Amino acid sequence: MPSAPSAHRLGDIAAHVRGELLGDPGLLVHGLNGLEEAASGDVSFYGNPRYRKQFEATRASAVLVGMDTQARDGVALVRVHNPHLAYAKLLALFHPATRPEAGIHPSAHVHPSAVIHPEATVRAGAVVEKGAHVGARSVLHPGAYVGEDARVGDDCVLYPHATVRERCVVGSRVILHASSVVGADGFGFAFNAEGEDGPEHFKIPQVGIVRIEDDVEVGACTCIDRATVGETVVGRGTKLDNLVQIAHNVRVGPLSLICAQAGVSGSAEVGTGVVLAGQVGVVGHIRVGDLAKVGAQSGVAHDVADGQIVSGSPAIPHRDWLRASAASGQMADLLKEVRALRRRVETLEKEKGG
Amino acid sequence: MPSAPSAHRLGDIAAHVRGELLGDPGLLVHGLNGLEEAASGDVSFYGNPRYRKQFEATRASAVLVGMDTQARDGVALVRVHNPHLAYAKLLALFHPATRPEAGIHPSAHVHPSAVIHPEATVRAGAVVEKGAHVGARSVLHPGAYVGEDARVGDDCVLYPHATVRERCVVGSRVILHASSVVGADGFGFAFNAEGEDGPEHFKIPQVGIVRIEDDVEVGACTCIDRATVGETVVGRGTKLDNLVQIAHNVRVGPLSLICAQAGVSGSAEVGTGVVLAGQVGVVGHIRVGDLAKVGAQSGVAHDVADGQIVSGSPAIPHRDWLRASAASGQMADLLKEVRALRRRVETLEKEKGG
Amino acid sequence: MPSAPSAHRLGDIAAHVRGELLGDPGLLVHGLNGLEEAASGDVSFYGNPRYRKQFEATRASAVLVGMDTQARDGVALVRVHNPHLAYAKLLALFHPATRPEAGIHPSAHVHPSAVIHPEATVRAGAVVEKGAHVGARSVLHPGAYVGEDARVGDDCVLYPHATVRERCVVGSRVILHASSVVGADGFGFAFNAEGEDGPEHFKIPQVGIVRIEDDVEVGACTCIDRATVGETVVGRGTKLDNLVQIAHNVRVGPLSLICAQAGVSGSAEVGTGVVLAGQVGVVGHIRVGDLAKVGAQSGVAHDVADGQIVSGSPAIPHRDWLRASAASGQMADLLKEVRALRRRVETLEKEKGG
Repeated sequence: MPSAPSAHRLGDIAAHVRGELLGDPGLLVHGLNGLEEAASGDVSFYGNPRYRKQFEATRASAVLVGMDTQARDGVALVRVHNPHLAYAKLLALFHPATRPEAGIHPSAHVHPSAVIHPEATVRAGAVVEKGAHVGARSVLHPGAYVGEDARVGDDCVLYPHATVRERCVVGSRVILHASSVVGADGFGFAFNAEGEDGPEHFKIPQVGIVRIEDDVEVGACTCIDRATVGETVVGRGTKLDNLVQIAHNVRVGPLSLICAQAGVSGSAEVGTGVVLAGQVGVVGHIRVGDLAKVGAQSGVAHDVADGQIVSGSPAIPHRDWLRASAASGQMADLLKEVRALRRRVETLEKEKGG
Repeated sequence: MPSAPSAHRLGDIAAHVRGELLGDPGLLVHGLNGLEEAASGDVSFYGNPRYRKQFEATRASAVLVGMDTQARDGVALVRVHNPHLAYAKLLALFHPATRPEAGIHPSAHVHPSAVIHPEATVRAGAVVEKGAHVGARSVLHPGAYVGEDARVGDDCVLYPHATVRERCVVGSRVILHASSVVGADGFGFAFNAEGEDGPEHFKIPQVGIVRIEDDVEVGACTCIDRATVGETVVGRGTKLDNLVQIAHNVRVGPLSLICAQAGVSGSAEVGTGVVLAGQVGVVGHIRVGDLAKVGAQSGVAHDVADGQIVSGSPAIPHRDWLRASAASGQMADLLKEVRALRRRVETLEKEKGG
Repeated sequence: MPSAPSAHRLGDIAAHVRGELLGDPGLLVHGLNGLEEAASGDVSFYGNPRYRKQFEATRASAVLVGMDTQARDGVALVRVHNPHLAYAKLLALFHPATRPEAGIHPSAHVHPSAVIHPEATVRAGAVVEKGAHVGARSVLHPGAYVGEDARVGDDCVLYPHATVRERCVVGSRVILHASSVVGADGFGFAFNAEGEDGPEHFKIPQVGIVRIEDDVEVGACTCIDRATVGETVVGRGTKLDNLVQIAHNVRVGPLSLICAQAGVSGSAEVGTGVVLAGQVGVVGHIRVGDLAKVGAQSGVAHDVADGQIVSGSPAIPHRDWLRASAASGQMADLLKEVRALRRRVETLEKEKGG
């Protein structure tokens, strides 16, 4: 949980982000904000030439900029290689994360056989079941749930009502946002035309687990289903936004970004450093290659090669999709044009015959 | 929570909705229902000529109708300006909302520094953190969570497992449905190719808040992320359906309706009185103008002007989309037609050359 | 909750699934796994010729196969009519479900007027309100909530933070996954231009209920809204995946499958044995007929006939959609072609006139 902001001198700020300061190192800075919202006493950042106007008009006292930005009157600059990253680091400097005191709240329900690290925090009403482990400095907020024999590593945060079902494994420095669900049963049924009470979808027991590697973030109300057999895996450093669905036996590689309301179907594989934009759907049993990017609302029905950019439903190479999107607006005109051509050809044919 | 229905005389009903009664004011009415489902003793409503048949066949004892509907044998009519609204008001009359007794349940966890209005209700297992405020007549159902320094106004209802994270501000008469999440971290990362342990998505601390104005309703499992810096805002009287995603720094104006499973990306602005239909996606940093309407499953990639109606993914003016949708069904035929034309032109060209 | 695996002899396995064994009945089998993942000592299954290669390369000791599969060296076969179903039954045999001890945990909150079957389990922090019923052998996991006068049948499982709101009715053998919400208010408002404080969306009280029939499974974070008046119904044996939205007054028939992130709008009807693939949207007040299938991400805007297969947004017959999808990729080429044809026709016209 980030705390209220503190104040820092510009010289210290430049040092913190290893930047080159063009301005008064003694200037006291109180906060951070976007170029448009920033006021005097604030630091902002300018990393995209698209926002040149906002940069020129900003009231910020200092701006984090790229290495080639020229000095400007009336505003201090801190030149860095990656202004966006430097801004993120300053936000962390100004709002150092706080952690509730270690210990188990008397109203938490911790099974005697569970192992809670003495530096961990288990807050009011949180539940840790039989045989579960919770690592050092991890925080279980009120209502968080860690199931039987599940393991949560060090320095994790489970926000209210986050659920980790039995036997699932969560690495270190993982954040599970409120009402996220790790390890619900995969959606697997075998149709049985001759059940005892007539036809039925016979439930396939989902006996596998979910394994979440280190440094993963799981958004609010995001669901990661346990494997039928084996593991559903979310790789190191991957970030899932809110309301995302990861089905059973999916494997997501490290460092991928899956945006809100996207869904990945059973046994699909998402590679390393992939970006799935919002509301994307990926069908089961296919592979989205490393560093691939999938445009918002796209439906991926076939393998995507490493590095490929695709869009559309069904998804096609992004360039083709752009062409097709542009063309589809011309469809009605095209219909007219073809009808007109047909008439002209008919006229030519008649005249020739006449 | 609405209670079981009571019974009312038709004269009182007409007075309650300020309608003109064509029928017996002493008739006792027991319930309300749709035209098809209503039985004798029920009131129904008829506001859309599309349902003329159902109106003519209804077994309801009385029907709320528009001002120009003619009297009909065997059924009492109550003429009003807005039959749908009148029906809603009667539902509220027949099922007056009840509220649990004020007070803090012994198993609730309320920090000593939190301020709970004496007329508020904090039920079993609900949590109110340090410095938080809960206003008069507000009800926190079991498992509801109000974070540090957060504020919940008067007459709010937080259903089970609703979460309001630290410092967020909720107005009065706000309803947060079960497992909704207000103030989870926005999805913000700065790629850092040179992290201590290799490449990483460096987490940008999300130090802003969510501000929900008065009379807002937030659906079950709907997520509204806190701003990176500043505020994510949902305006007065706006209603969000279930499973909606509102990203960080979004601003939704007053009186908008956002239907289930729609998502609004970071820093986008949604105006006043906007309707986003189900499963719509809005990309970041754009504006959907006042009174605009966006069709179901559309993907809004650019600004939408005030009052505009758009559909499709990417979204285009609704009329163009209707034309394009109709045309796309003809695409295969068009391909054939063009191939045939080409052959005919080739024939003409050969003959000319021959 | 499935337990850790046990070991079984192949003869017993064949008997359990009523299969014909080609192999050593005394062989001890320790686990189950997919064809590719299976190791020596495992049983796998092969039901789809698409996986012939994996079948031929598997290291499993035994494989469940169809009745016409030929014997193979080095691997025992168990011939059955439905290998997938037999595999599911073996998973249940190897991982028999366990149930926590019956009884009410001292930290659960059960109203004195609630009726809890003595064989039911109410775990830590679960809540059962006034007048609610919980049937035999049902398990309410920590944080599960059963509202006033609601009824939960026999042999149900409510995972952590599952919510059943007041008066809703849940049948027997129903599974509600974590953070699912049964009975939140439907999304119903009547616009009132002349509210006391200006224009408003007047809330239509949602006084109906949700009725969930026997053998239904409701995914994590799935929301089923209560009816405005009457019932929202999910029929016997229907399975809902995660993050699904079922709006007020929807009726879903028996034995349907609704995949993740799909949504069904108000008063729509979904028949018997229907499949809605992932991220499908169904508009309100229409009917999707029995045994119909709707492709992923489709938007159903009109009635779908019994047995029909549709795809696309808006949805059209699946075959037409395949043709249109294929054609849309050719759109840009078609535009070029038509322009070229126009020039050729112009040339012909000029020459004729010349």
